Amino acid sequence: MNDQVSQDTAVEVSDEEVFAGHEGGKLSVTSNTPISHARDLSIAYTPGVAKVSRAIAEDAALAARYTWADRLVAVVSDGTAVLGLGDIGASASLPVMEGKAALFKSFAGLNSIPLVLDTTDVDEIVETLVRLRPSFGAVNLEDISAPRCFELEEKVKQALDCPVMHDDQHGTAIVVLAALRGANMVLDRAVADQRVVISGAGAAGVACARILQAAGVGDVTLVDSKGIIYPGRAGLNPIKEQLAETTNREGLRGGIAEALAGADVFLGLSCATIEESLLATMAGDPIVFALSNPDPEVHPHVAARYATVVATGRSDFPNQINNVLAFPGVFRGALDAGARTITENMKLAAADAIASVAADALAPDHIVPSPLDPRVAPEVAAAVAKAAEVDGVTA
Amino acid sequence: MNDQVSQDTAVEVSDEEVFAGHEGGKLSVTSNTPISHARDLSIAYTPGVAKVSRAIAEDAALAARYTWADRLVAVVSDGTAVLGLGDIGASASLPVMEGKAALFKSFAGLNSIPLVLDTTDVDEIVETLVRLRPSFGAVNLEDISAPRCFELEEKVKQALDCPVMHDDQHGTAIVVLAALRGANMVLDRAVADQRVVISGAGAAGVACARILQAAGVGDVTLVDSKGIIYPGRAGLNPIKEQLAETTNREGLRGGIAEALAGADVFLGLSCATIEESLLATMAGDPIVFALSNPDPEVHPHVAARYATVVATGRSDFPNQINNVLAFPGVFRGALDAGARTITENMKLAAADAIASVAADALAPDHIVPSPLDPRVAPEVAAAVAKAAEVDGVTA
Repeated sequence: MNDQVSQDTAVEVSDEEVFAGHEGGKLSVTSNTPISHARDLSIAYTPGVAKVSRAIAEDAALAARYTWADRLVAVVSDGTAVLGLGDIGASASLPVMEGKAALFKSFAGLNSIPLVLDTTDVDEIVETLVRLRPSFGAVNLEDISAPRCFELEEKVKQALDCPVMHDDQHGTAIVVLAALRGANMVLDRAVADQRVVISGAGAAGVACARILQAAGVGDVTLVDSKGIIYPGRAGLNPIKEQLAETTNREGLRGGIAEALAGADVFLGLSCATIEESLLATMAGDPIVFALSNPDPEVHPHVAARYATVVATGRSDFPNQINNVLAFPGVFRGALDAGARTITENMKLAAADAIASVAADALAPDHIVPSPLDPRVAPEVAAAVAKAAEVDGVTA
Repeated sequence: MNDQVSQDTAVEVSDEEVFAGHEGGKLSVTSNTPISHARDLSIAYTPGVAKVSRAIAEDAALAARYTWADRLVAVVSDGTAVLGLGDIGASASLPVMEGKAALFKSFAGLNSIPLVLDTTDVDEIVETLVRLRPSFGAVNLEDISAPRCFELEEKVKQALDCPVMHDDQHGTAIVVLAALRGANMVLDRAVADQRVVISGAGAAGVACARILQAAGVGDVTLVDSKGIIYPGRAGLNPIKEQLAETTNREGLRGGIAEALAGADVFLGLSCATIEESLLATMAGDPIVFALSNPDPEVHPHVAARYATVVATGRSDFPNQINNVLAFPGVFRGALDAGARTITENMKLAAADAIASVAADALAPDHIVPSPLDPRVAPEVAAAVAKAAEVDGVTA
């Protein structure tokens, strides 16, 4: 399938180009003002800086105004679940975190710094971030393996009075919800009546299940490597046990085949391939989101034989479901509002904002905006900031 | 004295200018390549970045080439000894660290990130840096109180296989040694015969004593708030006990007056004022370095009545002894050489390089280069890199 996909590739990028683009790293830290005269030195460094430090010592709230920390996002990883590559370690995860920081600046004008950690102990990671708290204003957790990521995010949120989000969970969930809204608008359907089957119950699968439930999707069924998730099944971690109670309304048993029969939406978030014959068993004109990267669970051309609306995670097919539609605007909105946390409503608002940007050119091959659409991040930021105000979580 | 100094101020900077220069912080993190097209996204982020992460996972040495970490300086403080302001906390220290990062980029082209810590426990700081090790390539410790700073630096050096330097100690010491070389060239004197009195035995005083001894200064005498340091004196911490054994060759007792009588060099590194009458008791035409900021221990115009060569830490008098002459080039040279540590010889080489830049225009009011002299950092970097090779500490 990989060969077939490659032939369709619109943006063909060679290994040489990729490695050349990473030479020396992808980020720079620069001074906002050049330091070329004695005057510049007197302002940015001694003796001037002493006045600013003294002012902050006397009124801690001034740090938000006179340092960069208040609007700085720490992009944090332990390298345990890097893209589809698995546990490759902190150092190997750094190119991804640098890329993330580049996107934060390009799409939302936010400064961010990659912090990759040589520990995978949840409590040590929390403790490290608590100690570094005066250095940043928000935390984007990234590429951290499930189910540790759930515990880690919860503990970091408890420990820090600032926006914290594990992007692999919620960034994906926000964009998936936006895409489902777009697909339903195209097909004139309502979420309440739909049965969504999620293949994969890792970070993204769990977060998607939760946001789809919060958005009112009628029935969500999760399938992991051991089959359909139901109460009492063997091999459930506490998170899956919890989800087993509220998902799979029909009490299905079995594997992906049993789950997909008659389902309205397939959401692929694992690398498990889906046979064409299974798509034929779904409800009429199903919605197919095959998001595994780089190889979708089912090739979009194959899916298109059964489905009007097909989405993938790839940039070389229509309807790319890419986290970059969410995270820059979510953090920008949360920081603009001075939010102390990121609430469920802020995530739902982000999904609505993404869907609304797509809405003016809605089509089967345009259920979400392009990741490069410059309207997205500002719209998401505005919606998220407003939701933060409504939820009363601003400073 | 403060009023008198202010009247002399060449570079007058208003509070308004200083605070305006800090609005929103002084740093930006930017992407080295703009991300405006699908192609840029494919290179810097998915799918391209996966190839780079996989390559590093297979060969860890590639992280040095394809991430920014290998040449990134972490500027680390716990805010316990910020400028002359004391223990004002991590958040209030951040403007200084941002300034430092701005100087690293401006003078040595190095990326750096401020990491300010909400703990003052030495072992917790070490542990935090160990966990963050894959994120950076060198550590500049800054504004950390004595005597904790000595233990901290030693432990961080032991724990990390990369250049580590507490700038308040060694940056100051390097520039003081360079200035003393310059002064001696002007006055045609040799260090071996000199008796240097250091007022202040904190981070800078201790490091200056050590580097002056390493450079062959005949006699160094330290004076702290309780008087001259000698073996067995009350109130000595372990570092001072150690220094008591190797300094104060004449076995002097008493205070600053007893120390200065007949001394060749006064090096002020505390805020203790020196009366004019004491200068009169020093050896003929003494060298006076009154480095306390913003108020020198003795006004340079007063010192000039007794001394041909006078230096301060201020930008508005000649002979400004400023760490910025040292730290950008020291770290640049260490990183250029792939040094795993910063040795004593590397510091001595840095001092020589600074002195050699001043040498071509040597004069009583030009014993060190201007902090803005663009030749300094490259010369220092080259000398430090060479010393690292000679010492065999490169990778």
